[in-house]
Amino acid sequence: MTYALIMCGGSGSRFWPKSRKAYPKQFLKAVGQKTMIQRTFERINNFLPRENIYVVTNKIYVEIIHQQLPDLKPENLIVEPLQKETATCIGHSAVKFMKRDPEAVMIVLPSDHYIEDEKQFINTLQQGLLIAENNKALITIGVKPTRPETAYGYIQTGKSLEGDWLIDTYKAKRFTEKPNKEKAREFIEKGTYLWNSGIFIWKASVLLKQYKKYLPEIYEILKKIKDVIDTDGEEIALEEEYEKIEGISIDYGIMEKSKDVYVMECNFRWDDIGNWAAMQGYMDRDESDNYTKGDFCHVDSRDCIVYGGKRLIAAVGINDLIIVDTDDVLLVCGRERDQDIKELINKLKKDKNLEKYV
Amino acid sequence: MTYALIMCGGSGSRFWPKSRKAYPKQFLKAVGQKTMIQRTFERINNFLPRENIYVVTNKIYVEIIHQQLPDLKPENLIVEPLQKETATCIGHSAVKFMKRDPEAVMIVLPSDHYIEDEKQFINTLQQGLLIAENNKALITIGVKPTRPETAYGYIQTGKSLEGDWLIDTYKAKRFTEKPNKEKAREFIEKGTYLWNSGIFIWKASVLLKQYKKYLPEIYEILKKIKDVIDTDGEEIALEEEYEKIEGISIDYGIMEKSKDVYVMECNFRWDDIGNWAAMQGYMDRDESDNYTKGDFCHVDSRDCIVYGGKRLIAAVGINDLIIVDTDDVLLVCGRERDQDIKELINKLKKDKNLEKYV
Repeated sequence: MTYALIMCGGSGSRFWPKSRKAYPKQFLKAVGQKTMIQRTFERINNFLPRENIYVVTNKIYVEIIHQQLPDLKPENLIVEPLQKETATCIGHSAVKFMKRDPEAVMIVLPSDHYIEDEKQFINTLQQGLLIAENNKALITIGVKPTRPETAYGYIQTGKSLEGDWLIDTYKAKRFTEKPNKEKAREFIEKGTYLWNSGIFIWKASVLLKQYKKYLPEIYEILKKIKDVIDTDGEEIALEEEYEKIEGISIDYGIMEKSKDVYVMECNFRWDDIGNWAAMQGYMDRDESDNYTKGDFCHVDSRDCIVYGGKRLIAAVGINDLIIVDTDDVLLVCGRERDQDIKELINKLKKDKNLEKYV
Repeated sequence: MTYALIMCGGSGSRFWPKSRKAYPKQFLKAVGQKTMIQRTFERINNFLPRENIYVVTNKIYVEIIHQQLPDLKPENLIVEPLQKETATCIGHSAVKFMKRDPEAVMIVLPSDHYIEDEKQFINTLQQGLLIAENNKALITIGVKPTRPETAYGYIQTGKSLEGDWLIDTYKAKRFTEKPNKEKAREFIEKGTYLWNSGIFIWKASVLLKQYKKYLPEIYEILKKIKDVIDTDGEEIALEEEYEKIEGISIDYGIMEKSKDVYVMECNFRWDDIGNWAAMQGYMDRDESDNYTKGDFCHVDSRDCIVYGGKRLIAAVGINDLIIVDTDDVLLVCGRERDQDIKELINKLKKDKNLEKYV
């Protein structure tokens, strides 16, 4: 049986102040009329029946998810008691699927990515499933980079996978998370690097063997979690087990270490839209290379990203800034500094008068 | 008789978006709990009875003035049908005072300046009146510059006025309006330049002789205005005469040309607070030399002026910006670019959707 797992626990600090801890990016309409999670659910639901689609999230988002995804089967919502990064939520889901079907194959999807060309997307998943079902393989969906983005992970491609495949597939040679600008430019010039889309396909049993090898402590906890799933004591036991886990991402914990990783070079348009800079592709561009949304008027201002709210945003003689206006917070940020929004959020958290803005 | 004339017709574009055409700077609380015009009225009312205090303004501000200055005698409000700069409103008021008292002496005061140390202020006016009553002299109040401000006018001092004066008084040698930074620095180093405070003292009759000489066209119109003042046809006639006037400031029109200008070196703290940069003296300063009002939180941001409204203003990696937040407009402006806010307002005026923000 094929299961889709939509990961929906991120707190979306990169899109602060538009995205807040209580209402992160995946629940917002970044592009178009539907929210990111709604689009993700629909996209996969055109390929798999709703019975096979699961969402994993933190307990603080349960209510929003039920509101935004009325088609999600309530029993298909996997609720984490604590945020312990992707290796934890994926491992937890894998043992849940294994318990239902030892032969389970999983498609893992972030909930907050932009994807265009659904047909190509589905073709890619189909080929990925075919490979995963018949091989000891961890499949990642790679994306041909279109800019030297420093906020993404890169995968260097190795040997081609033998066989007559519609979509080029390679052994993954090396993972590099968030390179600097120079490195990112070098990767693009070399032509043998793909963006790591964070979409994965694998048999749950194959994945769990990798946990046993590379994340043995988490593996032991996952075995206990498997035992309590669908029992009366599940909630309390989960909380206890999660407490013990040292969180780590699937990329650091498994993908960068495993020898069984393959990467497919996908042919659909993908974007993490992982920060304000990435939003510019979906905004209006004016004659001075400002990317804008909402009322904006300027004198001699260039290369800004202006994400307006209800107000007029006026600019005089400014360059390379990100301006984001919301009902209660205004952010002005250097264009190359949006990685540091996290630091600002940490500062707010420490201030009793300002923590409400996190 | 001594009359005070408070000029209150400015549209305050330099403080946009806090100040709007419909509600300019003089009606706002820049510093403290009273508005600029209220403080100006009180300050002069401690020296002159209300019967002798006049306000000249544009008709669009009549209602706000009555609201803010309940102590102003209604018949002492001089209403201009059109904005034609300071030479017009001062000349108009001068003929009005002359009609009541041919020996009238006038103190002219801007309505939107900040003044500290009222005792010194009154001492200065007293000495100025003494000089003006007995000499063919146009007296200006000069201020020792404390910074190389490029938004102010400068007066070079000449020969000392003979006599045993409490406050040093000089023949004015040269006026320079809004010098560049280099020039302003040079003026300060030389030590013989004073800021032009825009506060003037003169006999109305002495002033009008200067109009006859330097602004003969306006002088002819002022004679006609004098005839209609306090008649039934005043309002209509004023409108007709104002239509014909080519507006000019008193500085360009008279002060820079006349040979009878004297400047007193005043000993009270004065500030035009003529732009956002000048506001910094009245705001909180943080450890990174940001001047702030309201909730502000930043990472690695320096030398900004942040005039907050109801929202949190957050900054990451920015320098030398002016940020002004109001209910319906947000301004982000280069710190050295606030003179160009006028250009922005002109742009807004030309846009049907945005002109409401002017």
